[in-house]
Amino acid sequence: MNTNQQFGSDRTLSGMPPPRRTRLTPDRRRAQLLQLGRELLATHTLDELSVDDLAERAGISRGLMFHYFKSKQGFQRAVVEAACADFLQRTAPDTALEPVPRVRAVLTAFVDYVLDHRAMYVSLVRGAASADETVRELVDGARDTQAARILAGCAEFGYDDSPMLRTAARAWVVFAEEAVVGWQHPGEDRHRLAAFLERTLMAVLACVEPAEDTLSRT
Amino acid sequence: MNTNQQFGSDRTLSGMPPPRRTRLTPDRRRAQLLQLGRELLATHTLDELSVDDLAERAGISRGLMFHYFKSKQGFQRAVVEAACADFLQRTAPDTALEPVPRVRAVLTAFVDYVLDHRAMYVSLVRGAASADETVRELVDGARDTQAARILAGCAEFGYDDSPMLRTAARAWVVFAEEAVVGWQHPGEDRHRLAAFLERTLMAVLACVEPAEDTLSRT
Repeated sequence: MNTNQQFGSDRTLSGMPPPRRTRLTPDRRRAQLLQLGRELLATHTLDELSVDDLAERAGISRGLMFHYFKSKQGFQRAVVEAACADFLQRTAPDTALEPVPRVRAVLTAFVDYVLDHRAMYVSLVRGAASADETVRELVDGARDTQAARILAGCAEFGYDDSPMLRTAARAWVVFAEEAVVGWQHPGEDRHRLAAFLERTLMAVLACVEPAEDTLSRT
Repeated sequence: MNTNQQFGSDRTLSGMPPPRRTRLTPDRRRAQLLQLGRELLATHTLDELSVDDLAERAGISRGLMFHYFKSKQGFQRAVVEAACADFLQRTAPDTALEPVPRVRAVLTAFVDYVLDHRAMYVSLVRGAASADETVRELVDGARDTQAARILAGCAEFGYDDSPMLRTAARAWVVFAEEAVVGWQHPGEDRHRLAAFLERTLMAVLACVEPAEDTLSRT
């Protein structure tokens, strides 16, 4: 995938000596810095990302960092934006698949992504409570996109759209986050977790009243 | 309940002129300050709680604030601790009730509490992503207590304890938080929301495999 090449995600830059004086195009340099920032989220919170530390690791000047990102806050936002975009791209539904295999593929990709980037993902989820409103909006926006994907699937399945269906989809997204982040099992149990998530998604959606006016409940 | 009296939650202190020079016992003064802090969480994030502002509102000196709470961080932690304790006390299961009415009463209390203290509750949930580890632990601890209550109920219902049951209970707690915080309906729909939560809790628990070794799934 082009995005992966561009972000150099097959090379772990932070595990290598700083690639000093490497000549890169501005776009590739920016992508490299964002990739490095995402890798640092595995061991640092968002607020701990230091521009100085990052400039040194990337072998560029502090001034160049500010040229690309304007401020520490600008860099943090760009890292979160890149991480959310990567996550959403890797968990995108394949519309060529039938609904059930499509949901299954998305949930498998979701479980794999979170477990493979657990520490980074936790930093991001915590970023949702960041004092920076833009960061909160980025993380919340990624959840909204996931919820919107679920709702698009619901429309195909013939569910009536309703405020409660939207509440259910959005709340299930954080349910899934929490379940995967809290999962403490070895790798071979991943398919059990994905299957559990699939069952809970269907079960939660089935709890939504079919129409708004069916209030006849004790 | 004694705790409510002590915390003076029937009086909205922030809506009144500062009770200057009022003579209170140290315990009551401390409780008054914590109550004021919790009320301010309705309009401020945790990090925005200013010791100066609070001392002025309470009509005491900054020095006395520090006498009670040692630091701004100490005050924030004490406010979060008091808010979590209050929340858990108000949503405690009444073991005199049968399981189904007991769950229903807890969920009604939960929905009422969150909707009646929505802004404070959101500040607290965001506090879970606070840079302060103690604050994170307090909020996470309140979620753990809620999950433990669900698991205690499950044991009564005859569910086998398992890592997946624990994952389900914990993830459902954040599902419920998200669903109530995101609920945009007027007051009379509260019972629908509580009933929806009840159905999702039962549905999610039913998604847990009955035993660890039933892995025979494609």
